[in-house]
Amino acid sequence: MVSMDDYLLLIPGPTMVSSRVLRAMSRQVDSHLHLEFNTLLKSVIDDLKKLSDSSEVFIIAGSGTLAQEISIANIIEPGDKVLCFTNGFFGGRFPEIVKRHGGKPKVFEAPLGSAIKPEDVRKALREDSFKAITVTHIETSTAVKSPIKEIGEVVAGSGAYYIVDAVCSFGGVEVKTDSWNIDVLCTCSQKCLAAPPGLAIVGLSKGALEYLEKREVPISMFYGDLKGWLPIMRNPLDIKYWATPPINLIYALREALNQIFDEGIEKRFERHRILGEAFRRSMEVLGFKLVAERGYEADTVTALHYPNGIDDVKFRNLVAERSILISPGFGPLRGKTFRVGHMGNISPNDLISVISAIEYSLLKLGFKVELGRGVKEFNESIGNNHFISKLDEKA
Amino acid sequence: MVSMDDYLLLIPGPTMVSSRVLRAMSRQVDSHLHLEFNTLLKSVIDDLKKLSDSSEVFIIAGSGTLAQEISIANIIEPGDKVLCFTNGFFGGRFPEIVKRHGGKPKVFEAPLGSAIKPEDVRKALREDSFKAITVTHIETSTAVKSPIKEIGEVVAGSGAYYIVDAVCSFGGVEVKTDSWNIDVLCTCSQKCLAAPPGLAIVGLSKGALEYLEKREVPISMFYGDLKGWLPIMRNPLDIKYWATPPINLIYALREALNQIFDEGIEKRFERHRILGEAFRRSMEVLGFKLVAERGYEADTVTALHYPNGIDDVKFRNLVAERSILISPGFGPLRGKTFRVGHMGNISPNDLISVISAIEYSLLKLGFKVELGRGVKEFNESIGNNHFISKLDEKA
Repeated sequence: MVSMDDYLLLIPGPTMVSSRVLRAMSRQVDSHLHLEFNTLLKSVIDDLKKLSDSSEVFIIAGSGTLAQEISIANIIEPGDKVLCFTNGFFGGRFPEIVKRHGGKPKVFEAPLGSAIKPEDVRKALREDSFKAITVTHIETSTAVKSPIKEIGEVVAGSGAYYIVDAVCSFGGVEVKTDSWNIDVLCTCSQKCLAAPPGLAIVGLSKGALEYLEKREVPISMFYGDLKGWLPIMRNPLDIKYWATPPINLIYALREALNQIFDEGIEKRFERHRILGEAFRRSMEVLGFKLVAERGYEADTVTALHYPNGIDDVKFRNLVAERSILISPGFGPLRGKTFRVGHMGNISPNDLISVISAIEYSLLKLGFKVELGRGVKEFNESIGNNHFISKLDEKA
Repeated sequence: MVSMDDYLLLIPGPTMVSSRVLRAMSRQVDSHLHLEFNTLLKSVIDDLKKLSDSSEVFIIAGSGTLAQEISIANIIEPGDKVLCFTNGFFGGRFPEIVKRHGGKPKVFEAPLGSAIKPEDVRKALREDSFKAITVTHIETSTAVKSPIKEIGEVVAGSGAYYIVDAVCSFGGVEVKTDSWNIDVLCTCSQKCLAAPPGLAIVGLSKGALEYLEKREVPISMFYGDLKGWLPIMRNPLDIKYWATPPINLIYALREALNQIFDEGIEKRFERHRILGEAFRRSMEVLGFKLVAERGYEADTVTALHYPNGIDDVKFRNLVAERSILISPGFGPLRGKTFRVGHMGNISPNDLISVISAIEYSLLKLGFKVELGRGVKEFNESIGNNHFISKLDEKA
């Protein structure tokens, strides 16, 4: 929750961080070569390995876009063919990144709002062989979740490295690297992990790690060369140097992970599931249509079509009168859709606030709305799932 | 200054940040597409343009190493020849970075401890022509400052783009992009600017900016593609997207810049000059020899040869008993030298603490030392330059 002078940030990332994370971040800067800091770094890497089921995890100053680029640059060599499944803006960046690093992308483009299906992948892999394939778990621009576990079953045995963009899912929705046959998982700090932006995170499978260690062709970037980072990430206590890590953001990520473990990861996934479903129902009862195809809705973000006659900027400005920031649509969906992020530390109260602000905005724009109708639907949907600690009996 | 449970961080970066910067950083995360944040970002870019005399400045989540790589990747095209002047570890990274991006490096290597001289550059430019040349302003591994202004006069008119690594100088020692004929200035947040690590900063001259805008060959990296970042950095209020910026680190940099302007940039340079000189004198009087050749000493960091018989790890552990972290030598200088950073928010008190700890450590290691001898020299050298606000008369 926020006080009157802050905004309630309900965009699909960055998400709001807790006061305990902000406090942890504001510790004095330590040396990146100090054992104390490296002990903390090791604990963060170990926890991320567990959370993501990766054989190795890399934490590097940067953004999710850098994590995407690192994933490509470390796996492909000049001339390698990469099959890129795209169903929106962020997946659509992979082919361009592949080209920058000397690879040959083949693009399979699903319509906006559609998921990538295992049968799409099976068909494409029958036609040709590839060094790698890319899939976006949750496409932030359309709020669609693709079945990456099922796709992993299809990719397994094809000889292709399976690269998954989990930027908008990791920490809020289940993702497993090794056991789902994923080879490279890329994500970042500022979405479901609810830490501030500034950390690119990459997880490797056992197979991808072996490839990296044996690779002889130099990697086409220096800063993101995981071979350079490997001695540090594998054993931080060994104290090696590649580039200076963003010390305070790693303090913040440590505390964000503590908070995740305090909640429990399964409970966290459940919270995202129940609140995501309740929010979608509240929007449908108010007459909005989801961008995502049925059965593939993301639990971390929702994209909604405006009814005819709603001006995007006017609508979002009305929502902002309640000090709530939501996002416009992306690319060709701009003007026609809006997006609400509900990941990280999202609470029922945050969503009730935005549903109420949306009802208010519709009314102001001349639509017939029963104020409280969406809130009622939301409350009925979540039932007794408040996700908030009970008061002490004596309080 | 630090309390008993913190370390006094006197390594050559990251440097300690002030409590006002830590507080500024711990504000709630804002949207990177919110006008309020972009107004702040614009003020940071405008101030960095003024401070560096650059025609454009880019601030990107990453480290100084990324800033080096961005500088190369945006200027060179496949096959371009780059003349790399190296006199230590960090300058020595440029040839490798050039290769990763398809360029052909020619290396001029000066001995460790030596500066790059204008005559070296003149001679090399007479022999061949190059797309770019790289020079390190202050080589962090040897504490040597090269005369980049005078080198700029030699490079001007050669047709080569002049790339300067100002990681260990910008904000503590004068550096001017446009008026010193520098084309690309790369630096970062955690050294003389005294903000936390996590921001790569790149300044471009008018000429480099024109090259970038006209360039047709795609840049060999995606995340660091300055053409992609240009619409954002040129006019943040226009609100465009390339990759998510590290919001809180930009809050921190804003406050670090406020602190720099409160001090005054000329006063800040003077503080670094006077304290650097006083620290070197204190070390020489204790019998240490500088790694840097006479006349080219850096005012932000000092590297010192151990007298025979001093064990590096034992020595630094003794200094650490006073809760002070200093650095070992780098590469071939490891074990034989140590380094003390004195940049950013460095105060006379910090240096008196480390000089005193060094005297204590020498004594413990069996050397004849008059305790207080180095401190006396330091005090005599700084004279009345306390660099600390006077108490209010009424206090």
